[in-house]
Amino acid sequence: MPKVLMVIIDGAGDRGNVTPLSSAKKPNLNKLAKMGINGIMDTIKPGVRPGSDTAHLALLGYDPFKCYTGRGPIEAAGVGIELKEGDVAFRVNFGTVEGEGSVFDKIVVDRRAGRISETDELVKAINEGVDLSEFGVEFVFKRGSGHRGAVVFRDDLSDKVSDVDPKKVGEKVKRCVPLEDDEKARRTAEVVNYFVQRSHEILDSHPLNLEREKKGLPKANVLLLRGAGKVPHLPKFEDRYGMKLACVSGTALIKGVVRLLGGEVLDVKGATGGKDTDLNAKVEASLKALERYDFVLLHIKATDEYGHDGDFEGKKAFIEKIDEAIEPLLSLDFSEVCLVVTADHSTPINVRDHTADPVPVTIVYRDVRTDDVEEFSELKAYKGGLHRMTGNDLFNIVLDLINKAKKFGA
Amino acid sequence: MPKVLMVIIDGAGDRGNVTPLSSAKKPNLNKLAKMGINGIMDTIKPGVRPGSDTAHLALLGYDPFKCYTGRGPIEAAGVGIELKEGDVAFRVNFGTVEGEGSVFDKIVVDRRAGRISETDELVKAINEGVDLSEFGVEFVFKRGSGHRGAVVFRDDLSDKVSDVDPKKVGEKVKRCVPLEDDEKARRTAEVVNYFVQRSHEILDSHPLNLEREKKGLPKANVLLLRGAGKVPHLPKFEDRYGMKLACVSGTALIKGVVRLLGGEVLDVKGATGGKDTDLNAKVEASLKALERYDFVLLHIKATDEYGHDGDFEGKKAFIEKIDEAIEPLLSLDFSEVCLVVTADHSTPINVRDHTADPVPVTIVYRDVRTDDVEEFSELKAYKGGLHRMTGNDLFNIVLDLINKAKKFGA
Repeated sequence: MPKVLMVIIDGAGDRGNVTPLSSAKKPNLNKLAKMGINGIMDTIKPGVRPGSDTAHLALLGYDPFKCYTGRGPIEAAGVGIELKEGDVAFRVNFGTVEGEGSVFDKIVVDRRAGRISETDELVKAINEGVDLSEFGVEFVFKRGSGHRGAVVFRDDLSDKVSDVDPKKVGEKVKRCVPLEDDEKARRTAEVVNYFVQRSHEILDSHPLNLEREKKGLPKANVLLLRGAGKVPHLPKFEDRYGMKLACVSGTALIKGVVRLLGGEVLDVKGATGGKDTDLNAKVEASLKALERYDFVLLHIKATDEYGHDGDFEGKKAFIEKIDEAIEPLLSLDFSEVCLVVTADHSTPINVRDHTADPVPVTIVYRDVRTDDVEEFSELKAYKGGLHRMTGNDLFNIVLDLINKAKKFGA
Repeated sequence: MPKVLMVIIDGAGDRGNVTPLSSAKKPNLNKLAKMGINGIMDTIKPGVRPGSDTAHLALLGYDPFKCYTGRGPIEAAGVGIELKEGDVAFRVNFGTVEGEGSVFDKIVVDRRAGRISETDELVKAINEGVDLSEFGVEFVFKRGSGHRGAVVFRDDLSDKVSDVDPKKVGEKVKRCVPLEDDEKARRTAEVVNYFVQRSHEILDSHPLNLEREKKGLPKANVLLLRGAGKVPHLPKFEDRYGMKLACVSGTALIKGVVRLLGGEVLDVKGATGGKDTDLNAKVEASLKALERYDFVLLHIKATDEYGHDGDFEGKKAFIEKIDEAIEPLLSLDFSEVCLVVTADHSTPINVRDHTADPVPVTIVYRDVRTDDVEEFSELKAYKGGLHRMTGNDLFNIVLDLINKAKKFGA
């Protein structure tokens, strides 16, 4: 059976008539566009701004309107927490608070605790020191990269509770409140508030934080929880599509999506999910993964970061780096591999956030109907033979091309 | 925040290879097409013939399949009746009947009472003379332009009742019957029939009608009710989208849609909704409205009328008039205003009614990706960068462009 390699250049699309993608020197991407069939894609649907998580769900054949329950569970899966259906999960930031009284009287002065990078000791102290047994609740807390982490509460709890993270510095830590008039939601809020207070006490007096204080660094003395979500029941990718899924990504959110679907997250040295990532290593790992897996997702993040930064030249230069790095893909055997190159959404320079502007799609495969498009760009792809499609459409089109689609009817 | 000006040229689309739009001299519309991004639109969905009401609901971001409950409530809102959720409303024509017996034994000889223009006295006589208190029902009857009007019955009634209007001359006035085996529907039909009989008695002997008779004019002696609809619960446009909505339109149905959504209907001298409308005044009023409102809908009706008349040259000439009138739009600051030019549906000359043939769309705004389309026409727009979309899609795309769209996911 032919295999699929899907390359997702995060946030690659842009707005206007001169874009990083259209102006970048990208001979290899252009060759692929010329060899393949092209189109534009609304990953979710026209005018709906995709998150990277909902977008990747769509690109992997899942309807995000039906299966997305919030960021928490995906982040938790991303940092490697084993999830059970019904768990309530939160994204967590280590932050810095100052002031007197309980944690909810204190002011958030840094939402990333000075972009602290090493949190293993602090995580350990919380896992050992916080006890929720009086509530009959278990929890699992794991760190992600930098100041990031995720926490899961295990019991019959609700995800209809508010964020603890005020999302602005200069504001108090927010008390978690039930968003529904419901006993379960009230109990969940109580558990969350206790967890935040207790972990604050442990963190605030932790030797590592006292040392940071001495050095004039912000203490990582609060856990800012947000994005409560109940772990959804998702049929495994392999059960659903009969293909072994793997991804190469440095980004917890994408790893989380793939893990939630039962896919493998490949460990690639130098794949940071940042601007300093080792693109060659990621491409090499993806090609190698095609030996063992049927559907390989290669996710490249930094284009999105440059978009969020409003850095046109940075985004353009990084696309040029990607173009160089993907050169080996030109030598794939396209009777054996169906290559898809696309983006999960646009992150325009002048918006600095995700938008719904459609993204280019190129499919290179023995059996596609080649069109006239000669450039991989959001400004040209609309003229291609694929026209305009959604992320779910794209996944189904690929399934059909590799003869994995089922006939509907007789 | 950027504002939106949406220009709807009613029924502008046509069929075949030479259309009023394609053959009209329209340098300004063409300039806009060239400056913008283009596509074709199925206002409701492919192959579904839109009413002007359902089309405008879709273009304003409401799903007509979910929120449309018939023409009555929209006409009633259009003539300025204050509606309550649950009211049952009908479109009304003043007509002419002849014959003996009750109103339901008489023959409709004119469905528009000789296109009577002045009905204030008659409306007053009905509001004062008809009493529905024995049914425990209140009513509000208001005139529209010409022979048109609307009536609302207020109580726990049903909209599952038939029309009184036979929709053909030479036929008897139809008795309203319940369309469901339901006590409420039976009671509503009874109320309607009583209302039609009593108003006929009052109208037939009204001095104004006796005078018309003397002059050889058809008496306006019957109210032909049709299009029963329950007033739907619609979230207000401003609550839903955070934008103040206004419209410039001479057409009750469009005013009704906008009023139902809580928008403002601007009073423009000379805006008749007909072939004699003052297009320059409407354009001027729309531009001025952009100072106070966030989303301005400029609706131009007569193209549709020429379509219903089967008048190719008239439709073409009117498009040329529109083209001249919209010249000031070329000078808009497109970093501040997102301009959309489109139609609500096609009204082809050789069909003389609405069809589902897709209509052209042009969006001019700083951030759009300009395409190769150089003409505003249903024959060229399909080559544009927007491809093919629905009315709801178009609304969401515009929301995204002006950065009012929310992100779905993280």
